[in-house]
Amino acid sequence: MTDTPRPRAVVLLSGGLDSTTVLAVARRDGFDLAALSVRYGQRHAAELDAAVRIAQRMGVARHEMVDLDLRAFGGSALTADIPVPKDRTARDIGAGIPVTYVPARNTVFLALGLAFAETIGAADIFIGVNALDYSGYPDCRPAFIEAFERLANLATKAGVDGTSRFRIHAPLLALSKAEIIALGLSLGVDYAGTCSCYDPLPTGEACGRCDACLLRLRAFEAAGVRDPIAYARP
Amino acid sequence: MTDTPRPRAVVLLSGGLDSTTVLAVARRDGFDLAALSVRYGQRHAAELDAAVRIAQRMGVARHEMVDLDLRAFGGSALTADIPVPKDRTARDIGAGIPVTYVPARNTVFLALGLAFAETIGAADIFIGVNALDYSGYPDCRPAFIEAFERLANLATKAGVDGTSRFRIHAPLLALSKAEIIALGLSLGVDYAGTCSCYDPLPTGEACGRCDACLLRLRAFEAAGVRDPIAYARP
Repeated sequence: MTDTPRPRAVVLLSGGLDSTTVLAVARRDGFDLAALSVRYGQRHAAELDAAVRIAQRMGVARHEMVDLDLRAFGGSALTADIPVPKDRTARDIGAGIPVTYVPARNTVFLALGLAFAETIGAADIFIGVNALDYSGYPDCRPAFIEAFERLANLATKAGVDGTSRFRIHAPLLALSKAEIIALGLSLGVDYAGTCSCYDPLPTGEACGRCDACLLRLRAFEAAGVRDPIAYARP
Repeated sequence: MTDTPRPRAVVLLSGGLDSTTVLAVARRDGFDLAALSVRYGQRHAAELDAAVRIAQRMGVARHEMVDLDLRAFGGSALTADIPVPKDRTARDIGAGIPVTYVPARNTVFLALGLAFAETIGAADIFIGVNALDYSGYPDCRPAFIEAFERLANLATKAGVDGTSRFRIHAPLLALSKAEIIALGLSLGVDYAGTCSCYDPLPTGEACGRCDACLLRLRAFEAAGVRDPIAYARP
C-alpha cells in the first residue's frame, strides 16, 4: 500500500501575524506546503527575515522569494518616500484607505502565487487577508477574492485543460485580529517570530505606533494574550 | 480657453509586433501614453531594447521597466532551460498550449499594469493579446480579459471610491496577425524596430524558425508586405 501524495498548496507568506496563521491553517488542512514571499521594495527587511525563519520552523518544503521592485511606481508610504502615519486613533485607522495602501498589491501577489502554483502543480493558494480589521484596503474583501479565483481558472493552462481547479483560500476573511491570534495559538503558532510593523527601528524592534502595530497590540489585548515581540514603545 | 488634459493610459509594451501596434492604437485614441515593460527573465534582451526604442519613437511620456525574475519558478521554454521548439507546422502551432507558455504571465503583467495605472491616475490599460493567432495561450482569450477588468475594479482604491472605472483594452483581440500588421501600417508603425523572436541569434537577428517567427513571417506574407527585420534564415 502506497501513500497518496499530499496535495500541494502555495501560501503567500509576508512574515506577519496573518500570513503565519494562514500557513498553520494550510498545514492543519494536510497540504504539502510551498511558500512565496515577495521582496517588493519594503522599507525594511525584517518582515522577509521573519518569513524565512517561519517557513523553516513550520515545515515548508519549498520557499521562493521573488524580487519585484514596486518602488518604480511609487504611490505608497510602504514603497515611496511618504511618512508612515503614527499614533492614529481606532476611528482614523478604520476610516478610508490609508497611505500605506500599495496599489494593486494583493492582485500582484496573487498573480505571482498563481504563476508559482501552476508551475509546481498546486491548485490551492492561501492568502491572509481579512475583511474586518482590514484597515481600509479594497483588495482584502470577499468580492475581490472571488473575482481572483474566477480569473485564475480562466488564466491558466491548468484551469483550461481541467488538470487543476484553482481555489483561493482566505481562511481569515471573516475573523477579527483577536480571533486570528486565538486560531493561530490553537494551531501551535509561535508569534514571537512574526513581524507586523510598517516601520521598525534599526534594532528590529516594532515601532508600536504605526497602524499595523496599533491593530496588533489591540488584538493581543482583546485575545487576552501578551504579544511576545519587542516594541520600542509598548 | 485651456486644453482639457488628455486621459492617461498604460500600455503593456514587450517590443514585439502586437504591443507596438497597440501602442499606436492608444496614441490614435488620444491617450497620454505611459508604457510598462517587464524584465521577467527572458532568454534575451533584444525584446526589451526594442521596447525602449519604440517608446522613444512613439511619444511615450513615461516608460517604466520593472524587474521580476520569473525564472525562480521555471516552467516555460522562455524562462527555463527547455528548448524553444523550431520549424513546427501551422497545424502543430495551432494545437494545444506550447512549452513557451509562461505560467500566468498575462495575469502577472496586467496586475503590474494595474498597479502602475492606479499610481499615475490612469484608468485605461492596453494589452496586445489576440485570440485568433494566439498560439494556444489561455490568457489571450476574451473571457480572461473580461474577468481581469472585473477584478481591477474590485481590487483598487480608484475602482472602489469611484475615481476611476478601469478598462482593459485589447484592440487586437479579434484580429489576425495580418490584420494587425495592416492596422499598424495604417497608423504609421515602423515594424523595423520590433522584435518577436523567442530565440534570436547573438547578432540580434531573428531565428526565423520558432513559433513567433513562423507566425510573423506568415502574417507579413498574408498582408502582402515585406517584413523589414533581419532573419537568420528567411
